[in-house]
Amino acid sequence: MLERKRCSFDTKQLAEYFNGGQEKLQRIGELADLLHQQEWGNKSRRYYLNRQELYEDALKAALGIWDLIRKKVITMEDAMEARKLVDFPGGLELHIGMFIPTLLSQASPDQQAEWLPKALGLKLIGTYAQTELGHGTFVRGLQTTATYDPQSQEFVIHTPTLTATKWWPGGLGKTSTHVVAMARLFIKGKDYGPHAFVVPIRDMATHLPLPGIKVGDIGPKFGYNGVDNGFLSFNHVRVPLDNMLMRFSKVTAEGEYVPPPPSNQKASYATMVYVRATIVEGAGWALARSVTIAVRYAAVRRQTSAHPGEREVQVLDYQNTAADLLPLLASSYALIFMGKAGMAMYSQFEQDRDRGNFDSLPELHAVLSGMKAVSTNIASDGMEAARRACGGHGYSLLSGLPTTFTHYVQNVTWEGDNNVMLLQTARYLVKQLLAARAGKASGVGSAVYTNNAEAELRQRCPVTCSRDWLDPAMQSAAFRHRSARLCVAATELLAGAGGGQVAFEGPAWNSNTVDLIRLARAHCFFVLHSTFADSVQRLSDEGTLPAPTIAVLFKLVSLFALSIMSREAGDFLEDGYMSGQQVEWARRQYYAMLSALRPDAVGLADAFGLSDYLLNSALGRADGDVYRALLAAAQASPLNETEEGPAWEHTLKPRLNPRARARL
Amino acid sequence: MLERKRCSFDTKQLAEYFNGGQEKLQRIGELADLLHQQEWGNKSRRYYLNRQELYEDALKAALGIWDLIRKKVITMEDAMEARKLVDFPGGLELHIGMFIPTLLSQASPDQQAEWLPKALGLKLIGTYAQTELGHGTFVRGLQTTATYDPQSQEFVIHTPTLTATKWWPGGLGKTSTHVVAMARLFIKGKDYGPHAFVVPIRDMATHLPLPGIKVGDIGPKFGYNGVDNGFLSFNHVRVPLDNMLMRFSKVTAEGEYVPPPPSNQKASYATMVYVRATIVEGAGWALARSVTIAVRYAAVRRQTSAHPGEREVQVLDYQNTAADLLPLLASSYALIFMGKAGMAMYSQFEQDRDRGNFDSLPELHAVLSGMKAVSTNIASDGMEAARRACGGHGYSLLSGLPTTFTHYVQNVTWEGDNNVMLLQTARYLVKQLLAARAGKASGVGSAVYTNNAEAELRQRCPVTCSRDWLDPAMQSAAFRHRSARLCVAATELLAGAGGGQVAFEGPAWNSNTVDLIRLARAHCFFVLHSTFADSVQRLSDEGTLPAPTIAVLFKLVSLFALSIMSREAGDFLEDGYMSGQQVEWARRQYYAMLSALRPDAVGLADAFGLSDYLLNSALGRADGDVYRALLAAAQASPLNETEEGPAWEHTLKPRLNPRARARL
Ligand SMILES: Cc1cc2nc3c(=O)[nH]c(=O)nc-3n(C[C@H](O)[C@H](O)[C@H](O)COP(=O)(O)OP(=O)(O)OC[C@H]3O[C@@H](n4cnc5c(N)ncnc54)[C@H](O)[C@@H]3O)c2cc1C
Ligand SMILES: Cc1cc2nc3c(=O)[nH]c(=O)nc-3n(C[C@H](O)[C@H](O)[C@H](O)COP(=O)(O)OP(=O)(O)OC[C@H]3O[C@@H](n4cnc5c(N)ncnc54)[C@H](O)[C@@H]3O)c2cc1C
Repeated sequence: MLERKRCSFDTKQLAEYFNGGQEKLQRIGELADLLHQQEWGNKSRRYYLNRQELYEDALKAALGIWDLIRKKVITMEDAMEARKLVDFPGGLELHIGMFIPTLLSQASPDQQAEWLPKALGLKLIGTYAQTELGHGTFVRGLQTTATYDPQSQEFVIHTPTLTATKWWPGGLGKTSTHVVAMARLFIKGKDYGPHAFVVPIRDMATHLPLPGIKVGDIGPKFGYNGVDNGFLSFNHVRVPLDNMLMRFSKVTAEGEYVPPPPSNQKASYATMVYVRATIVEGAGWALARSVTIAVRYAAVRRQTSAHPGEREVQVLDYQNTAADLLPLLASSYALIFMGKAGMAMYSQFEQDRDRGNFDSLPELHAVLSGMKAVSTNIASDGMEAARRACGGHGYSLLSGLPTTFTHYVQNVTWEGDNNVMLLQTARYLVKQLLAARAGKASGVGSAVYTNNAEAELRQRCPVTCSRDWLDPAMQSAAFRHRSARLCVAATELLAGAGGGQVAFEGPAWNSNTVDLIRLARAHCFFVLHSTFADSVQRLSDEGTLPAPTIAVLFKLVSLFALSIMSREAGDFLEDGYMSGQQVEWARRQYYAMLSALRPDAVGLADAFGLSDYLLNSALGRADGDVYRALLAAAQASPLNETEEGPAWEHTLKPRLNPRARARL
Repeated sequence: MLERKRCSFDTKQLAEYFNGGQEKLQRIGELADLLHQQEWGNKSRRYYLNRQELYEDALKAALGIWDLIRKKVITMEDAMEARKLVDFPGGLELHIGMFIPTLLSQASPDQQAEWLPKALGLKLIGTYAQTELGHGTFVRGLQTTATYDPQSQEFVIHTPTLTATKWWPGGLGKTSTHVVAMARLFIKGKDYGPHAFVVPIRDMATHLPLPGIKVGDIGPKFGYNGVDNGFLSFNHVRVPLDNMLMRFSKVTAEGEYVPPPPSNQKASYATMVYVRATIVEGAGWALARSVTIAVRYAAVRRQTSAHPGEREVQVLDYQNTAADLLPLLASSYALIFMGKAGMAMYSQFEQDRDRGNFDSLPELHAVLSGMKAVSTNIASDGMEAARRACGGHGYSLLSGLPTTFTHYVQNVTWEGDNNVMLLQTARYLVKQLLAARAGKASGVGSAVYTNNAEAELRQRCPVTCSRDWLDPAMQSAAFRHRSARLCVAATELLAGAGGGQVAFEGPAWNSNTVDLIRLARAHCFFVLHSTFADSVQRLSDEGTLPAPTIAVLFKLVSLFALSIMSREAGDFLEDGYMSGQQVEWARRQYYAMLSALRPDAVGLADAFGLSDYLLNSALGRADGDVYRALLAAAQASPLNETEEGPAWEHTLKPRLNPRARARL
């Protein structure tokens, strides 16, 4: 494409940086080729599969990767990449992603010795069954019971009500033979709250449900249909004492409950920090994928010429299309950098922890809760916006855009509903502010502004011309100011609602959650932006990437900041922090960045390094040959198996009066 | 539900008003019962069908309704309702929605006499084939040719390039026997641009493509998969002279081209006004459907209690959930009222037209272009927001929410891409302003402010306390001010970009479309809000609805206005029209409306009068028995046909070592 000639920086080098180096990127390419050659890895029919086929083929793909490891064709590290490339979530997803990790984190050494080899050798398949029909967010409200019977030294697992039916666990429907079930532990009538139990649910020889077990698939979903999310109820199912995961809490044979050590909670926070940093980076990559497709297509697609005979305009040259897509490019970059920074913070925390220092944990945990929400919202909304920017062809599954979205968007709900996540961040920030006001200034890291929020409130935006807005420090100051202001306002609101007292749950809290969520979101954008800017600065300082690349990345930082400020200008105007003129400068500079980045748009998409194999998109092909690809793919549609189509013989023919050969 | 006791107004009466009276509403109920009893009308397996089944069953449903008319079980008017209730778009969609209407509007009387009886008697099935692989928005760029051969008095229809392949027409893939094809008319080498031709494409006896025709299905889509959208190419296909639709333009046997009379364009604008008013009301109903499901579920769903033993909170009592859903209720009402007002304006126009007065047409057309975009954007985004507000269960197809969205969201693209539609409105507004400045004040109707925009710019918001914001006139003034300001700003921007000259296409236009779209959107919100407020006022003045109902509707008007103002506060602050304090009052009043409307939320959903049959949702049932419904529906999932599932025998069993009966 001519487009690529216009690019101002070395896209390959940036792609290598993002993908962990030249070797790694090359290895990813080799893996894509390898997978494409496997029957189970060939994606050409993926968009045509019905639910049952999706389910079976997804399992085959997962097992196929398993075999490649066993045969030593690929390493474990390769396998992680291969799972991403094959991109076919199925019945083993939770076995790999939750069952095994839960054993690793919550089973005692003896229990691990017992179950891990079987899990790793696929002698059993497990899933993680926490959510019930009636309870997702509110884990303390789970209703499944595990009653200890000291006589037989067994737990009796039971589903007492309809709403206690386990609901949603991936792979539970038809695949898993075992579950880790969260159930309320009862000993001698006392309720110890939810604990984790390993429960076999299917006969290993017949795969039929064991006595007392009712299990099945919960039906089709928006996306993710290769996965058999399932339901499960227990009718007084007995498991031995040893099936409660006992690394932390314990129950003795006599029925003595040994509570978990306090360090347990810290450890579980730390795990969440790690998982959420992964989600944040994953959000960036997920969005990158849709954006790569849409940006490439918008450079190929031409529509409308003002004068007959003139070449039509590339739709990316309409400012509205650029405004739809380029800020999404910036968001993808911001999220990937944020995810990487989150991982680095986590590593730093691990080092501190080993020296007995847990200080950074609360902040890290609080920020990454909200960041989970903000990142998955940005990615989900961005994917759908990218799809719409492609006009009609974006509605076709062959574009790759619809399924990318429908598979992804569950992320706003699971691993913690986004509203609930943001409220955790808000809770933390308000607490910090209250502590500071009580003379115990404790704000660290990104929340340090809570130590001195009142002073921040008096700040005014120092921008004096449009160019000033290209300074990341000016951008960052604005985001910080917004967070500080909203933090003070939300705290006052809560105090007002509580008659002077701030409560962190109950009616006063629940009826002010809109402003609390607004605060948390503002804080996360502040962190996201400053992390993005700081990361690019570091790459520049360390000489990791050459000047032209750094220059483009800084433009993306500005685009990210200014597109948000333009859209959410009210937040900066309301208290007089910015003037109308300053907002107008920000908006003009935002539009200027759209133009400035336009020549690099395709390059910035290329720099994610996503392969055609991964994208599996007629519109997003690197070579731009979209129309031929669409036609070729469409012809393979199952409806085209016969010329007359599946409804002719029995449905249409009787109506259309076959004897008449009228051709009008 | 206890919820319904809390409601302050007569929901049944409002439902009757919305649905065209008591009799009509009752009839809709009867139809729902009737349809539910038909094999093809039973929806219980709808979410489980694969693509081929969807295609066949959708056809059966359409033919089923056709038969009920033929057998005089239902009237034509009933049939229109039945199509909505069955809600199963299929291969006949375009035959009914475009092919027949196009014959009615563009065929000459002779042509109508020839084709209409066949079309109405289903002796042939047609579709409307305009879009090509390479051209959707830019109709003038279509590449299919129709070359007149005076020798044989035939047109030769041809697809000269890959990108000229027809692409997207509904029912084209496997159902249609005929198309109205848009093709460039060539006579003696001269290009007369796109014209409409009836072209038979399939043999009536065998349903096989006729010689020279390549036709098929374009593959699976985001939604709408009962419809066989198709591709089509012509290899020098000959049709008689008489197959060009000749009500307006004509070609004589000798090859003389007779251009359409100027009134043709006005007529086609008028048709568009009518169609777009329908789309606007349809957007309201589409959104109403998702909102009904989500609001009812949010009243049933309980999650989290602050203290053990306390009843858990209805999620609708979290302010964030109320803020997600109640403004969507308000939007649905606003859109339905807007659609009805649009229809009324159209009728008024028809009366004026019959007296030779076309004055209102340009404004009507311009406003409804943008309104098409704004309404379908509000509905699409709102549907997805409603889905997400339902947490995990909203991700299940059984909730009804995912498919409602995926079927609907194509509306942002087809019947005119939304960006392009908004740019039409912007173009009109800027032209009005320029005319006024040139001393030819011509702004009428909603655009009357362009006559005196500079004076409007000096206005300041007169609100002096939070309560003032409940006055629809204050709300309306703010929206009007915003439009006027953005209109002046966009005009100056264009003038600046064109060196003093305003151009309505080309680079200067194309690189300022973000602000132009912003203007158009602002104008449409102004119209939408004032139409909503005026409609409620009229219902009050005319005594159509009792005071308690009017009171609730006015709260919805305020909620609609204030939720938007809070979100888009920057637009009102930027030029000093509002102060930060006024915005804060608006926001507080917005939250107050959320609380005030909370007890009426379920009632306002009930008042749409949507039947359980239409909703087909485990979450949205009128009786609130959601968990039982979810479990029952899930058990019918095809994956549950066997206990072991479809992958056991061939895929899982070989791995899990069936001989080991280890139960751990
Ligand atoms: C595709 C998918 C896969 C899943 N896989 C698994 C799995 O493998 N294992 C498993 O155990 N579970 C799984 N889940 C379940 C998932 O963890 C839950 O759906 C999730 O925790 C959200 O809970 P919920 O559905 O109960 O939402 P709800 O809590 O019912 O939320 C409904 C609405 O109420 C709001 N809300 C709820 N509580 C509050 C509050 N305190 N304050 C403010 N607002 C509130 C939410 O924001 C939301 O808008 C899966 C879900 C999905 C969609
Ligand atoms: C489900 C479905 C059913 C359909 N059914 C039919 C049918 O029955 N018959 C038929 O003939 N067609 C049908 N269509 C096609 C439909 O009419 C076109 O998709 C639609 O007109 C949009 O055109 P496009 O796809 O070419 O988008 P494009 O014009 O390619 O739009 C791509 C992007 O460019 C932007 N853009 C394009 N032009 C401009 C401009 N001038 N200014 C600013 N931005 C611009 C758009 O906003 C969009 O973001 C159907 C489409 C769908 C999705």
